[in-house]
Amino acid sequence: MSDLNVVNAAEVAVVADRGVSRRGRDQRELDLIADGAVAIRGGRIVAVGRTPDVLKEWGEDGVATLDASGQTVLPGLIECHSHPLFSGKRHAEYQLRLDGASLSEIAAAGGGIWSTVVATREADDRTLMAALDTTYARILAAGVTTLEAKSGYGLTPAHELHQLELLDRSRAITPLSLVISYLGAHVVPDGVGADAYTSEVLETLPAVIDQGIAAFHDITCEAGLFTPEQAASMFAASRARGIRTKAHADAWASSHGWETAVAGGAVSAEHLTYTPDDEIRGVGGTDTIAVLLPQAELVYMTERRANARLLIDQHVPVAIATDYCSSIHATSLTTTLGMAAPWFRMTAAEVIVGATLNAAYALRLEGDRGSLEVGKRGDLTVLDIEHPNELTLAVGQSVVSDVVIGGEIQQREPDRRTR
Amino acid sequence: MSDLNVVNAAEVAVVADRGVSRRGRDQRELDLIADGAVAIRGGRIVAVGRTPDVLKEWGEDGVATLDASGQTVLPGLIECHSHPLFSGKRHAEYQLRLDGASLSEIAAAGGGIWSTVVATREADDRTLMAALDTTYARILAAGVTTLEAKSGYGLTPAHELHQLELLDRSRAITPLSLVISYLGAHVVPDGVGADAYTSEVLETLPAVIDQGIAAFHDITCEAGLFTPEQAASMFAASRARGIRTKAHADAWASSHGWETAVAGGAVSAEHLTYTPDDEIRGVGGTDTIAVLLPQAELVYMTERRANARLLIDQHVPVAIATDYCSSIHATSLTTTLGMAAPWFRMTAAEVIVGATLNAAYALRLEGDRGSLEVGKRGDLTVLDIEHPNELTLAVGQSVVSDVVIGGEIQQREPDRRTR
Repeated sequence: MSDLNVVNAAEVAVVADRGVSRRGRDQRELDLIADGAVAIRGGRIVAVGRTPDVLKEWGEDGVATLDASGQTVLPGLIECHSHPLFSGKRHAEYQLRLDGASLSEIAAAGGGIWSTVVATREADDRTLMAALDTTYARILAAGVTTLEAKSGYGLTPAHELHQLELLDRSRAITPLSLVISYLGAHVVPDGVGADAYTSEVLETLPAVIDQGIAAFHDITCEAGLFTPEQAASMFAASRARGIRTKAHADAWASSHGWETAVAGGAVSAEHLTYTPDDEIRGVGGTDTIAVLLPQAELVYMTERRANARLLIDQHVPVAIATDYCSSIHATSLTTTLGMAAPWFRMTAAEVIVGATLNAAYALRLEGDRGSLEVGKRGDLTVLDIEHPNELTLAVGQSVVSDVVIGGEIQQREPDRRTR
Repeated sequence: MSDLNVVNAAEVAVVADRGVSRRGRDQRELDLIADGAVAIRGGRIVAVGRTPDVLKEWGEDGVATLDASGQTVLPGLIECHSHPLFSGKRHAEYQLRLDGASLSEIAAAGGGIWSTVVATREADDRTLMAALDTTYARILAAGVTTLEAKSGYGLTPAHELHQLELLDRSRAITPLSLVISYLGAHVVPDGVGADAYTSEVLETLPAVIDQGIAAFHDITCEAGLFTPEQAASMFAASRARGIRTKAHADAWASSHGWETAVAGGAVSAEHLTYTPDDEIRGVGGTDTIAVLLPQAELVYMTERRANARLLIDQHVPVAIATDYCSSIHATSLTTTLGMAAPWFRMTAAEVIVGATLNAAYALRLEGDRGSLEVGKRGDLTVLDIEHPNELTLAVGQSVVSDVVIGGEIQQREPDRRTR
């Protein structure tokens, strides 16, 4: 069914088209509808309002009804940064890092992203698809409706194109709406210089565009990987060929990543852990979305955190994501949001907007989803809390009751509801 | 049934009686048994070993068998610090704190622990018991087998004794094994001086002991609440009357809490966020367990973290707990452990020991549970990961497959197993 009425919610959180500091319009509080309801017809939202009002117009016989009494309804959560397609294990090297080993020591011991590239290249499609199946199920169970998924563990033209194809085929195994990004410029492969590999990425780009799967070209600008000049050449080529761009920027060191991404016209720049305050002030307001990743900063034990407050003060829209990848197996976006609030000193409203409307902007899907507005896709995340603020009190607790994608209920937990 | 064979586990993690730096014996790696099995009879462990060996001796007909293929079996997780009995909501004040308000500003606005005390005193028993029911179910679902539960939101003799009684009655609604602590000295009630309230706690102690519910007297030593002298008087009275002690220490400021707790003979001292390095060095090795609470430090946005590495270096046994309370609704101990690893730079082995054997020591149950040893209680936490290290990669993901308490399976997730 793609017709559904969701009724009696303690609170329906209406995220309107004014993300966190997006174009200077602050969203410090969510618009809430107590005893709220959402009506979906043909997979699209047709009404959002108080339950009696919505039922009066849309309470037809034969339409499925989800009783969200005592619960909170959010726009379907959007996970806008993930690397789900990989094989291999990195838990042992993480113990070495916890014990103080440096990244270069890890790499010398055969660990790091390169170990994932080798294992992923060697894995057969069935193994990779089975892993995606498990990962998607976990991400969906934790409340996500749309997932951005990057290639980037192939690092040859053939392997990258194959990973994009596998990600495309994986649409058949999940109700998650997938947005796929080409991340050929993830790291520089062993034995290849950064200039040579930049050229290889540029040469691969036409084939990626011909393939028609990747919605974005994700480009790394990071000290020791790709310089601002190399990144700029990739942004320019992408713009010339008409593919939108994202950036991996300043995850490990101040690398001029933020200013390079904004100058390159990137839709989003992701990580920004080490972006200096001066650079944030220098760039000022922009429509490039800052995608911040608190779980990555936790696991990588970074020496600083992205300066979310300064970005917001500068009228930069901020999104929050989890960064599921070979070294971070976290699959719960609600956990990430709960963590993000104290980590970045963001309010519940800010982190929720960061994983709904601003995350939709990061995928250029803001016209189609990311808020509860008539005409948008019927994507909802129903949480077993009475007020959306409570999301920030419960880090790691499974607060997700139901996930609705295009008006179809993907998950029900009747036990929890009747408890 | 309290007879059970758990077989075919990818790894069985045997935590032997040598916790993290307990009495100088480091446990940097877990002892693992690949293709491992555990046999339980009459609720007690009778064998731990390789599956073929265990089945040869214990593979009788008619005994239930849990197939843990591809999974990891840990000693049942022990949550050794919680405040589950409360009413009221504090999510709104948390938004003020995220926005920069100080604790004294929060208190002036009617928030803080005192607001919970008022709401809890006003709540009827049925409401409180229903909340406990939900909380216990969530904590158990996240892998916990034994839970320490504190009073402390009553703060009059009558209210505290009633809270202890409610906690005792709540044993009937959960399979969790509860260990109950009297925390009369949680904060100083509004309108009562700390000296006067210390006297009141001392006068209440005989009734608490007569009641026979509390296994521990938990005593706060914190600047602005109870001084070291006031705390010492409570430790002395507890020792004289034969009730074991715990301490809330140095959560908000350096308060001589660690040295006061150790000098007072506390079984454990909890928080230790602001305990100065010099004080840790001065105290040196001790059998007092340091119970560290990373989620509390995250949510309270403390300016520093407990120095777990220095404590371990000084041969102090370290336990990890979640601190579920009115301002922290986190219920997942596995999430807390995943967070603790990078937060404190502890290895997977250290955090797992910290929530099994060292947590058992913190409850003085080390002879009965906390490790997989013949004769101990048949408490197991079965995780859907192939190696225990993976627990630290997956912050917020629900990795718990089954929880076994006294040989009885409390939770099964067959869907996940067959995926």
